[in-house]
Amino acid sequence: MIILKAKPVIEKRRAELIAKVQNLSAQGKRVPHLSVVLVGNDPASQIYVSKKETTASLVGFTHESIRFPSDVNPELVRLKVQELNQNPAVDGILIQRPLPAQFQESEVSLWVHPEKDVDCLHPENIGLLVTGNPRFSPCTPGGIMLLLDHYEIAVQGKVVCVIGRSAIVGKPLAALLLLRNATVIQIHRATQNPAELCRLADVICVAAGSRGLVQESWVKPGAVIVDVGIHRTAEGKITGDVDVNSVATLPSAMSPVPGGVGPMTIQVLLENTFTSALRKR
Amino acid sequence: MIILKAKPVIEKRRAELIAKVQNLSAQGKRVPHLSVVLVGNDPASQIYVSKKETTASLVGFTHESIRFPSDVNPELVRLKVQELNQNPAVDGILIQRPLPAQFQESEVSLWVHPEKDVDCLHPENIGLLVTGNPRFSPCTPGGIMLLLDHYEIAVQGKVVCVIGRSAIVGKPLAALLLLRNATVIQIHRATQNPAELCRLADVICVAAGSRGLVQESWVKPGAVIVDVGIHRTAEGKITGDVDVNSVATLPSAMSPVPGGVGPMTIQVLLENTFTSALRKR
Repeated sequence: MIILKAKPVIEKRRAELIAKVQNLSAQGKRVPHLSVVLVGNDPASQIYVSKKETTASLVGFTHESIRFPSDVNPELVRLKVQELNQNPAVDGILIQRPLPAQFQESEVSLWVHPEKDVDCLHPENIGLLVTGNPRFSPCTPGGIMLLLDHYEIAVQGKVVCVIGRSAIVGKPLAALLLLRNATVIQIHRATQNPAELCRLADVICVAAGSRGLVQESWVKPGAVIVDVGIHRTAEGKITGDVDVNSVATLPSAMSPVPGGVGPMTIQVLLENTFTSALRKR
Repeated sequence: MIILKAKPVIEKRRAELIAKVQNLSAQGKRVPHLSVVLVGNDPASQIYVSKKETTASLVGFTHESIRFPSDVNPELVRLKVQELNQNPAVDGILIQRPLPAQFQESEVSLWVHPEKDVDCLHPENIGLLVTGNPRFSPCTPGGIMLLLDHYEIAVQGKVVCVIGRSAIVGKPLAALLLLRNATVIQIHRATQNPAELCRLADVICVAAGSRGLVQESWVKPGAVIVDVGIHRTAEGKITGDVDVNSVATLPSAMSPVPGGVGPMTIQVLLENTFTSALRKR
């Protein structure tokens, strides 16, 4: 079984990105700039933001983090984002999720200008993706595609089962897969015969947020499994949505958790920021 | 077999809409206004636009058609649409498709302000639909839902096969179905085993634009079939994407062509225009 590790993909693509940024610098041009907005003190969010900062520095971007207390008035954050929207030196803006309860997710997704929305969450960018003219790559689905491409796993003409239908993963992933000529079966909590449908798939992408959901009976021998789930067990071990002991040697390839899809998302975020910076020149 | 005829659905919903518009008038309020932009002399488009005008009048809306010659500079049309966007007396704007070759479809879909885009083609509106906060109902998929609802055919927990992946029908239909808790199998030209996958479905929605595509071997006995196709035979007969002789009595319900999905789309267009008018008050 091939283990779809992020590491070699990221090493390769990061080196390419570093070279492109150096090339900009060598031409005396401004390097891409990423602005991250963080509200509150959620420990996981702190870690994610700090990872994004470290990686942005590593590839030669400039970046800034704008922090607000967890009880901030959303209007203050909105005004700050508007300022970033108007600042020509800012190429990408990211509002770290989750946000405190006083924020309305559907409102917030409209704040970042679509052309700076490197997280690809603005409805206009989702719509452009769905209708086949993507402006940015959605971070997690885009990361899955980079992973599959690197390991030369084609989805064209294949049956792909997408488990989950979130606005961040399941739905934009289905859209990306359709653009790649995959046949998509999208299953979710309300599906009555998930194992039976999943067993038809050549490629299984699970983003259900349900630990160990995918078991032996869900997997056709030789299928490729991409696991987007991330859970911490009572013993502190990180696992995904696949029950790896149960599926055992059935898959021909599988992404590990951790070290699979997770690390790919920052790479896509940075590539989107670079794309945005180039478009403005 | 139940024939899913549009007529009773439209009669009921149109009467409701007429009553709502009369209610606005009775309160001394402005009735909804629809502006239709038509470029060129395509005979089918002329018929569609004239049907939209007649129906808008019938329900008590005011409306206008703005016509341009087929060789018009797209910039002139864009400026006219911008004027309509800014006119507070206009509630809905529709640019009739297809457009001549000098127009870029991906550009045009951004012209109508999302809040007046009663055809639900702006990427922002597609994105809002996909992410679960629809601003308007996409006309053909929305019409399919009204038809199924009227005949009390629930899709919740059912396997629905969507055949086709156009930006106008297949993709927004899949999004609507997911919001209704259906399990969606989306197949298309590049699918290798379409009949086998389609045969799993409790409900089949075919919008492939391929005459007689769905045959006996595609249909599970008792399945519901919704036919979005519309073709004119050499003898001048109107038929759909389903081979009705081949599927014979297999389905438990089927929408006719003509008289099924087709007439529903204008109803959705008018309901969207009414929604838009109400939102502005």
